[in-house]
Amino acid sequence: MTAVFYHGNRRITVGNCTPIDPGPNEVQIKVAYSGICGTDLHIFHGLMDQRVHLPQIMGHEMSGIVQAVGADVQHLHIGDPVTVMPLVPCGQCPACRAGHQHICHHLKFLGIDTPGAFQSFWTVPAQTVYRLPPSLSLQHGALVEPLAVACHDVRLGEVKPGDYVVVIGGGPIGMLIALVAREYGARVVVADINPYRVSFAQMLGFQAVNPQEQDLIAFVQQETDTAGADVVFEVSGSSAGAKMMTQLLRTRGLAVVVAIFGQSPPIDLFRIFWRELRLKGVRVYEPEDFRQAISLAASTKLPLEKLITAVRPLNQLQAGLEEMEQGGGNMKILLEVQDVGAGPV
Amino acid sequence: MTAVFYHGNRRITVGNCTPIDPGPNEVQIKVAYSGICGTDLHIFHGLMDQRVHLPQIMGHEMSGIVQAVGADVQHLHIGDPVTVMPLVPCGQCPACRAGHQHICHHLKFLGIDTPGAFQSFWTVPAQTVYRLPPSLSLQHGALVEPLAVACHDVRLGEVKPGDYVVVIGGGPIGMLIALVAREYGARVVVADINPYRVSFAQMLGFQAVNPQEQDLIAFVQQETDTAGADVVFEVSGSSAGAKMMTQLLRTRGLAVVVAIFGQSPPIDLFRIFWRELRLKGVRVYEPEDFRQAISLAASTKLPLEKLITAVRPLNQLQAGLEEMEQGGGNMKILLEVQDVGAGPV
Repeated sequence: MTAVFYHGNRRITVGNCTPIDPGPNEVQIKVAYSGICGTDLHIFHGLMDQRVHLPQIMGHEMSGIVQAVGADVQHLHIGDPVTVMPLVPCGQCPACRAGHQHICHHLKFLGIDTPGAFQSFWTVPAQTVYRLPPSLSLQHGALVEPLAVACHDVRLGEVKPGDYVVVIGGGPIGMLIALVAREYGARVVVADINPYRVSFAQMLGFQAVNPQEQDLIAFVQQETDTAGADVVFEVSGSSAGAKMMTQLLRTRGLAVVVAIFGQSPPIDLFRIFWRELRLKGVRVYEPEDFRQAISLAASTKLPLEKLITAVRPLNQLQAGLEEMEQGGGNMKILLEVQDVGAGPV
Repeated sequence: MTAVFYHGNRRITVGNCTPIDPGPNEVQIKVAYSGICGTDLHIFHGLMDQRVHLPQIMGHEMSGIVQAVGADVQHLHIGDPVTVMPLVPCGQCPACRAGHQHICHHLKFLGIDTPGAFQSFWTVPAQTVYRLPPSLSLQHGALVEPLAVACHDVRLGEVKPGDYVVVIGGGPIGMLIALVAREYGARVVVADINPYRVSFAQMLGFQAVNPQEQDLIAFVQQETDTAGADVVFEVSGSSAGAKMMTQLLRTRGLAVVVAIFGQSPPIDLFRIFWRELRLKGVRVYEPEDFRQAISLAASTKLPLEKLITAVRPLNQLQAGLEEMEQGGGNMKILLEVQDVGAGPV
């Protein structure tokens, strides 16, 4: 079977590997589509060499059909269309004991800490496998994982109907957050310094502002009758975004930190005090977010089709990563791992 | 009547001023005690010269008895022991319209934006006046305002029985927060680099750590079975405190920003993301906090007596400010404005 390996130092090879038979409570999935995530790009850039195991098979945004099930697996059957929530918590740490398994202190992330979905057959723990509705295309099924991130972020962002929401950073996750927030009944503006992303947000029907060309604070003040935004999602990971988020919020508004910040930016704690602002970090997803993402994707309410920039063969992973690292001109690139010969595509 | 004036440039004079008869919906209070607040020290240092009106009568932590009431004042009578919640909101701004009058965008703070309580007779809007129970000493009544700050902070800090709470900064507000949090059923550690404050916290029965002498993070880890603190109150206003607060928290723990930060310190947004931490600014108090503070003070559950370092005559304001600015060796200095000849003292 085919697998794509990362060897460090930006080197990717296409090769073979032996399918792993599912053990007890494991499931072997015939992978249909795997999306390329920003995290895969991070790995490709060598930023996670300490964590991955070279040669690493990456990939964790996927869909496929069940190829085989191990002993004791009751809820899944061969041929089921599925996706994977790629988190394996330890069950013992303080976070797990407090019910926050998704941010377990020793979380194992499938496709980073273990081999991932850029291979023909992926064997994973059964409890990570979610069945997809037959009506959901497997291409859209491969978007469930990033969509679950957005569902988690908007849920923890406490977005309510009528809220005014700012999304700083209009990449795939930012755009999905904007879409989910709109489903919650919010008015949404997307801010990005990349003209492609600004146009993309407008194409999806959002207000969109390039803060290098337009005064975003003045824009939000005007749109909210000087009150400010109810919720700001910081998805850019930039110091400029971190500064902006506190300036945009209304009294007691909520800033949601979605991005992975490499440095600790200056934060205006005076304004947080003065306006009694709130700030919250959000990471990955919980089972209810995954279920909501599957349900939303199957509802066809979201224009997921538009988020898929390209579908390439699995052996084009390196080209896809290089396209992404040029930034800007794409949203989600899916790799077609194989024709699974099942389900609507 | 006597009043004490701030003239700018650290100059304080004691003089006379004419009592102001209460107009409609106003109350004139014969002031018994006025506490010196850190904000008064800020004003004395010239940091708020743009905001105050020179010569400024400062003071907003007080108790007294009603001397006269204006027309339309129904709920207060001459001789009532009272304190003042010194906030006058505009009623029109987005914060007021959203129900957050206490952090009105155009908030008038009595004793800063208007003349304050360092004078014999203080005339204020009737809606700011709260009656004190006859059993409450007027010295303790003068502590209601800072105690209401602590009640607000602990309430918004969502402190629950059994929580482990860290208070960074053991001045008067930090100490009151610690006391109120303990009343909520929390275990509390107070952190301060000032040996007097560390000893003071221990004298009140709290765990206390000087983070320059002891590893506070290791201490909290040990006390919480490696989970971390449920709530951290940042009352120091220091970059070191701002850094510490995110390191001390458990997964999804809450950092409460009480202090007034002059600069924007670096904040570890990665850790906020990674542990899904929360952060919240808190400022002054709402009516329910004032009522709770009066009730708590009257309950005699809190050792308020111990917080009063000294009671001096009104004309000793400057000496009191100079004592406070040396830092360290005191908690709350009360000024006895006059013998009001009423109530238990």
